Amino acid sequence: MSDSVFTKIINHEIPAHRLYEDDHVLAFLDANPLSDGHSLVVPKEPAKTIDELSDDASAAIGRVLPRLTRAILKATGATSCNILQNNGADAHQAVMHVHFHIIPRFPDKAPGGEGLTFNWTAHDLEREHAHEIEDAIKAALA
Amino acid sequence: MSDSVFTKIINHEIPAHRLYEDDHVLAFLDANPLSDGHSLVVPKEPAKTIDELSDDASAAIGRVLPRLTRAILKATGATSCNILQNNGADAHQAVMHVHFHIIPRFPDKAPGGEGLTFNWTAHDLEREHAHEIEDAIKAALA
Repeated sequence: MSDSVFTKIINHEIPAHRLYEDDHVLAFLDANPLSDGHSLVVPKEPAKTIDELSDDASAAIGRVLPRLTRAILKATGATSCNILQNNGADAHQAVMHVHFHIIPRFPDKAPGGEGLTFNWTAHDLEREHAHEIEDAIKAALA
Repeated sequence: MSDSVFTKIINHEIPAHRLYEDDHVLAFLDANPLSDGHSLVVPKEPAKTIDELSDDASAAIGRVLPRLTRAILKATGATSCNILQNNGADAHQAVMHVHFHIIPRFPDKAPGGEGLTFNWTAHDLEREHAHEIEDAIKAALA
């Protein structure tokens, strides 16, 4: 299997604007940003999707998210941001190596001026189905 | 300061379909799901946004994301999902207590049938500005 573009960045085979690195994690600017300061946090472990990532690597990413988010908000002046991690082509994953987006939001650029917006169509949780899906998830966790 | 609805769920003052719990983390079904199996993972620590969350609490959430995602995909039959964590009203945060959404995606329901879709308008990273923002973020991290 060939290395992903993110593994090549980790290995210094492709340049990137590197922001932070430790034994498990690398953070760098997204080359196709949705907004100013849009950054990616990736595990050095080459898992494609988060369900395939080790607990330790995922914990290491979790550990740096507060610190990186604080720095990105401070550097950009943004007061809001989304952290987004997409798994699978149908969920807008383009590079098949786990990555967490940190995406600052600048509402003064809305409407139309922001790189990321959501269509968010929620419904009420249907009680009977909720019990079924709760049981199914708990069985899968067991 | 009054407790958030998620703190009340953690403390069993409000019912929820609880999926997983440990010393730092609770996961439960979202009461206003975007799709079947849409779940929330919250820290017991009552931080409003991830930049205010402790490293340990954030690492504890990171650690359980692979396991929970595997169970939710298995239980729902979804093959793609988004993990989304919103900070600030301008980033679509409704409850001011850190929460990670795990949102299964069902592309056979698209177009129009999925609860969450993105408007994703990226641009190329402008080289000179990239160096400026890289330096600003690294300075903020230091």
